[in-house]
Amino acid sequence: MNLVATPAHLSTVSSTFEQDFSQRLHWSMEQDAAIEERVAAILADVQQRGDAAVLEYTARFDGLNAPDLAALELTQAELQAAFDSLPEGQKTALTEAAARVRSYHEAQKQATGQSWSYRDADGTLLGQKVTPLDRVGIYVPGGKAAYPSSVLMNAIPAQVAGVAEIIMVVPTPKGEKNPLVLAAAYIAGVTRGFTIGGAQAVAALAYGTATVPKVDKITGPGNAYVASAKKRVFGHVGIDMIAGPSEILVLADGTTPAEWVAMDLFSQAEHDELAQSILLCPDADYIAAVQRAIDRLLPEMPRAAIIAKSLSDRGALIHTRSMEEACAISNRIAPEHLEVSSRDPHRWEPLLKHAGAIFLGAYTSESLGDYCAGPNHVLPTSGTARFSSPLGVYDFQKRSSLIEVSEQGAQTLGRIASVLAHGEGLQGHAWAAEMRLKG
Amino acid sequence: MNLVATPAHLSTVSSTFEQDFSQRLHWSMEQDAAIEERVAAILADVQQRGDAAVLEYTARFDGLNAPDLAALELTQAELQAAFDSLPEGQKTALTEAAARVRSYHEAQKQATGQSWSYRDADGTLLGQKVTPLDRVGIYVPGGKAAYPSSVLMNAIPAQVAGVAEIIMVVPTPKGEKNPLVLAAAYIAGVTRGFTIGGAQAVAALAYGTATVPKVDKITGPGNAYVASAKKRVFGHVGIDMIAGPSEILVLADGTTPAEWVAMDLFSQAEHDELAQSILLCPDADYIAAVQRAIDRLLPEMPRAAIIAKSLSDRGALIHTRSMEEACAISNRIAPEHLEVSSRDPHRWEPLLKHAGAIFLGAYTSESLGDYCAGPNHVLPTSGTARFSSPLGVYDFQKRSSLIEVSEQGAQTLGRIASVLAHGEGLQGHAWAAEMRLKG
Repeated sequence: MNLVATPAHLSTVSSTFEQDFSQRLHWSMEQDAAIEERVAAILADVQQRGDAAVLEYTARFDGLNAPDLAALELTQAELQAAFDSLPEGQKTALTEAAARVRSYHEAQKQATGQSWSYRDADGTLLGQKVTPLDRVGIYVPGGKAAYPSSVLMNAIPAQVAGVAEIIMVVPTPKGEKNPLVLAAAYIAGVTRGFTIGGAQAVAALAYGTATVPKVDKITGPGNAYVASAKKRVFGHVGIDMIAGPSEILVLADGTTPAEWVAMDLFSQAEHDELAQSILLCPDADYIAAVQRAIDRLLPEMPRAAIIAKSLSDRGALIHTRSMEEACAISNRIAPEHLEVSSRDPHRWEPLLKHAGAIFLGAYTSESLGDYCAGPNHVLPTSGTARFSSPLGVYDFQKRSSLIEVSEQGAQTLGRIASVLAHGEGLQGHAWAAEMRLKG
Repeated sequence: MNLVATPAHLSTVSSTFEQDFSQRLHWSMEQDAAIEERVAAILADVQQRGDAAVLEYTARFDGLNAPDLAALELTQAELQAAFDSLPEGQKTALTEAAARVRSYHEAQKQATGQSWSYRDADGTLLGQKVTPLDRVGIYVPGGKAAYPSSVLMNAIPAQVAGVAEIIMVVPTPKGEKNPLVLAAAYIAGVTRGFTIGGAQAVAALAYGTATVPKVDKITGPGNAYVASAKKRVFGHVGIDMIAGPSEILVLADGTTPAEWVAMDLFSQAEHDELAQSILLCPDADYIAAVQRAIDRLLPEMPRAAIIAKSLSDRGALIHTRSMEEACAISNRIAPEHLEVSSRDPHRWEPLLKHAGAIFLGAYTSESLGDYCAGPNHVLPTSGTARFSSPLGVYDFQKRSSLIEVSEQGAQTLGRIASVLAHGEGLQGHAWAAEMRLKG
């Protein structure tokens, strides 16, 4: 097999650029009606029959039989044993990564997750109280996409937020457990875990069963069934984003070794044939050098077939008129991962409006961010960085407004409220304000 | 017609309390399959045919005909004229309310909505950049629930966040426009407005048409069609919460005049027959006094029929063993509006974990918060305060992680990332990190 990776070579000066670019970018989350229907049935069944339904689906879909759901609970001893049995190098790496992720999220909580209040001239107290969620569920995929790093990235912000109970679900097809996933759960402070997955696990967390406690919010990635189930229970419980395929966009000024950039494009492409890797650069020679590096490095890659298909079907090397134009195009894409591979990244960063995470400078490979730099690797995909944010401590907190109106304040506010309430035809509202007016 | 309002009188010492209480609380957002199907069809149609489809649905559902969609745009001159033509009292009240809401949300942005970053010992820069959304859509209901205060509460936080374009949609059945709504749009800084509504307006905002620009997020309340449409476009654009019926919970120690509390219960009940008003109090005599106040005041209320039905079907006056127990029950309910009608509200506030907004002290009627205290009146309903927050500036901002790893930092981080990436079978990730290691 002679694999080649042939990303589209585009140029912004071409008359067909807009068309070619749109075509390359196009991806839409298919809403498969058959999946939606099956998921709706599973949710209803688990809501009604609880443990028994979850057990049946686990037997049917994961080939895992158990006498009762309690038998599928992971004990803390089992999580700890998984950690203890890791090779020393993995144990250290996991521990250090967890410490860095924790430290970043503590800084995040300190910076933007604190209660606040003030008193205005009338003595009225206004503010917000920030409190953690009581109990959250974390979905961890099994099988080929079982990533211990995702356990850290979901559980640690919840723990830093102060969530008292973190319930992990992870399918273990045929009962095969991933020791790194269990070890990560141990390090990250997961409270309880169950080896269940799919829509049935989402349903168990959303509605609660005799064995699985109902949670307030469910986060974590999953397949189309999990995504559909999360979307359906949204409102009943909170959810994080529905993730699409992963993406990287590299803005290069041509000063980073071409091999580094090629490998960064690979590290996205190797995830999934649908993953998208794009390079934007004003230097045509550099683009050619990156393509040569791709050709040279591809045969050595263990996941070469996935990389070749991803780059050929969805990748693009785009020659731009300038770095400024490259920044503008990046804003249109609103990429999940954005590398500013430049000698002078701080010149370009202020121009970048929409991105999940921005990696500044040649040494900041996306993979460092994926594992251990500290920031979360759960990021908005498919252009949703236009309106959403990385997973964070704020996803595991909620706010309550605080209002304390003084007797004096009620005189000012009461008159305003009364006029507006009468204007809306809500006399009860008006009179409640008027009753607090003096004489 | 001899109306009576008979909320359930419950007591926590009763052996049937748990059962009675659960029954009273029960409310579930019905997922009407027929509505879902019709909404899906409307969304697909607008996505495909754009303006033409929106025009047809507007003619069919709102009885409003226009030659093209541009004819349904509200001009800035029209918004300003609506404001200018208001009676002086309304003009002042609206302006003062808007100023207070703006000032509160500016404090909110200052307290929790700023970019932040730090450098660790290795010189690695970590942080988050906070930026406004580019363009948002605000849904404003027409007809009986057309509330100008909601225009303020949705548009002002967007404006404070720095959103450049705020697009309002508001249905005007048979072309009848509400001048207070238009005036509020003028005061709140709405950029463009269209007199369209329903699922077709949500679709126009989510997908964009030739005339209506595509937005990044849609907020604002609406009927079952609007709610279903918002839920369906979620992911393609951002949305705020799906709201259920409004609720108030009053925690009373018996020191507030009973009429005030009765009127506060009314001011919730008058919204909607499904609205829920609950009083929790350890003083049986006070509960009796509130019931007498209800009986006395009800006949005077212009919306007495709605109030009577809401209180009788869904209201409750609950006698608790203590204020502590009342706080615990309030946490189980996680109410949208929570009044702590007590001489000593700061004694109880720390015990309250879940609520949309907490109103402290006898003078802080919910209606002051609804209109002009400053905090947002768009609040999580139906127990969703367990995991979600009032609408705020943060809903119109998003965050991008910032990471800049120094050459030195890449040596430490690269070794950790390499071990973990190999553990996950992602060699591209590992090699991208290893390439940045020296010698």
